[in-house]
Amino acid sequence: MTSEVPAIGSTVWAVGDGWIPPTSTGPAPEMISHDSICILNASQQHADIEVYAYFQDRDPAGPFRLGIGAERIHHQRLNDLSEPEEIPRGTDYSLVIRSSAPIVVQHTRLDSRQAENALMSTIAYPLNNA
Amino acid sequence: MTSEVPAIGSTVWAVGDGWIPPTSTGPAPEMISHDSICILNASQQHADIEVYAYFQDRDPAGPFRLGIGAERIHHQRLNDLSEPEEIPRGTDYSLVIRSSAPIVVQHTRLDSRQAENALMSTIAYPLNNA
Amino acid sequence: MTSEVPAIGSTVWAVGDGWIPPTSTGPAPEMISHDSICILNASQQHADIEVYAYFQDRDPAGPFRLGIGAERIHHQRLNDLSEPEEIPRGTDYSLVIRSSAPIVVQHTRLDSRQAENALMSTIAYPLNNA
Amino acid sequence: MTSEVPAIGSTVWAVGDGWIPPTSTGPAPEMISHDSICILNASQQHADIEVYAYFQDRDPAGPFRLGIGAERIHHQRLNDLSEPEEIPRGTDYSLVIRSSAPIVVQHTRLDSRQAENALMSTIAYPLNNA
Repeated sequence: MTSEVPAIGSTVWAVGDGWIPPTSTGPAPEMISHDSICILNASQQHADIEVYAYFQDRDPAGPFRLGIGAERIHHQRLNDLSEPEEIPRGTDYSLVIRSSAPIVVQHTRLDSRQAENALMSTIAYPLNNA
Repeated sequence: MTSEVPAIGSTVWAVGDGWIPPTSTGPAPEMISHDSICILNASQQHADIEVYAYFQDRDPAGPFRLGIGAERIHHQRLNDLSEPEEIPRGTDYSLVIRSSAPIVVQHTRLDSRQAENALMSTIAYPLNNA
Repeated sequence: MTSEVPAIGSTVWAVGDGWIPPTSTGPAPEMISHDSICILNASQQHADIEVYAYFQDRDPAGPFRLGIGAERIHHQRLNDLSEPEEIPRGTDYSLVIRSSAPIVVQHTRLDSRQAENALMSTIAYPLNNA
Repeated sequence: MTSEVPAIGSTVWAVGDGWIPPTSTGPAPEMISHDSICILNASQQHADIEVYAYFQDRDPAGPFRLGIGAERIHHQRLNDLSEPEEIPRGTDYSLVIRSSAPIVVQHTRLDSRQAENALMSTIAYPLNNA
């Protein structure tokens, strides 16, 4: 039924403002401060995804590898990546996300350092790889 | 008077970060936690719209059908969709929105799980169907 | 000195999620709940701007007329528009913004209905009028 | 390893809604109210960057000069710029950012005027300089 939906997205995306708040208030896991990338693979192919984290004063980290099936999604908290390394808390970073199939990426942060949580979100920046 | 406004938008849009907060604080309906898609049909035609919800580990749900008249808008809380099924609370999802006429889609979440509400919003991702 | 900066922007923009929170908490004017469009005219020409507001169940309102000088900005709270009419509070709307010169538009809401304010912002959607 | 990542971004970007909240609540530096531009240089070249601030009723300020190494990032609080001048607090502004290499820019505000902070973020607007 959804086979008529065109493959939407890009195979390369970037996030500028990465930062994992170092502290949290409230119950885990839902109120743990986090940065997340929310990825939609609306295509008919499996998506093999590589995430690279860039920093101010060291070489990029990665690739962090993710896989998303055809017509499936994956919301990844950056906090939870550990292979090949962890992304440090309270440290500025940016991301480049590459995929074997077209995907859509949205970046969201929940900051619960204070008693009442704050949210921010934006569609990430796609490379227009026409 | 507005007939000189060009038809603005795309006929296919995607939202990456769908999630309906499972609890709320404050008076209904305005403070009920919600995900919404705010749709503008600035064209001179009626827009027949299909919304598909994608999940991590099951086939997509939908189409949820909406209709918007020429030069009219519709702000749809995802919480309120029930046909052909409800979108579960507290569950990651993404959206693809298809329309018979060019539309503009903005995604907004109000999260009132805690006493003070948090907001996030972004223009959704358009398929460049030139 | 800035004359080398290329004219950046589009002459038609749209905002999907318009809604002016009907109540506020805190001192005026800075904590008054508001929707705003923040407009940059980085071009070398004066920008004559028309704003149209679209609604769910009535014809569009407008044009609301604004003018921005060359290399100047204007942040307009939608609350403050009154000519040809006011935009009602607590009512869903969307916007189309047209300009005689290329501009950049960002949409921001401050919601102070509760004691602690919430913010959301997104670059608006540009018509790619190449 | 990341040398296969294509240079992603644009060499000209704009931010519409600049405003540095004039007061803050909580410990410095993390809870100081701020506007920031988070810049990724995923290219293989050093990026020489000029930032111009535009205002409602005066000529633009700048250029504020930044440099980012190849495959490095820089998150710049607008509060912290002082050369050739400071950006005034509590004043509407917009930004144009120019770079010698392709970059990605995300605009984020943390507003801690009240006890619980609010956040907003958006990918900035790129000039499509193809």
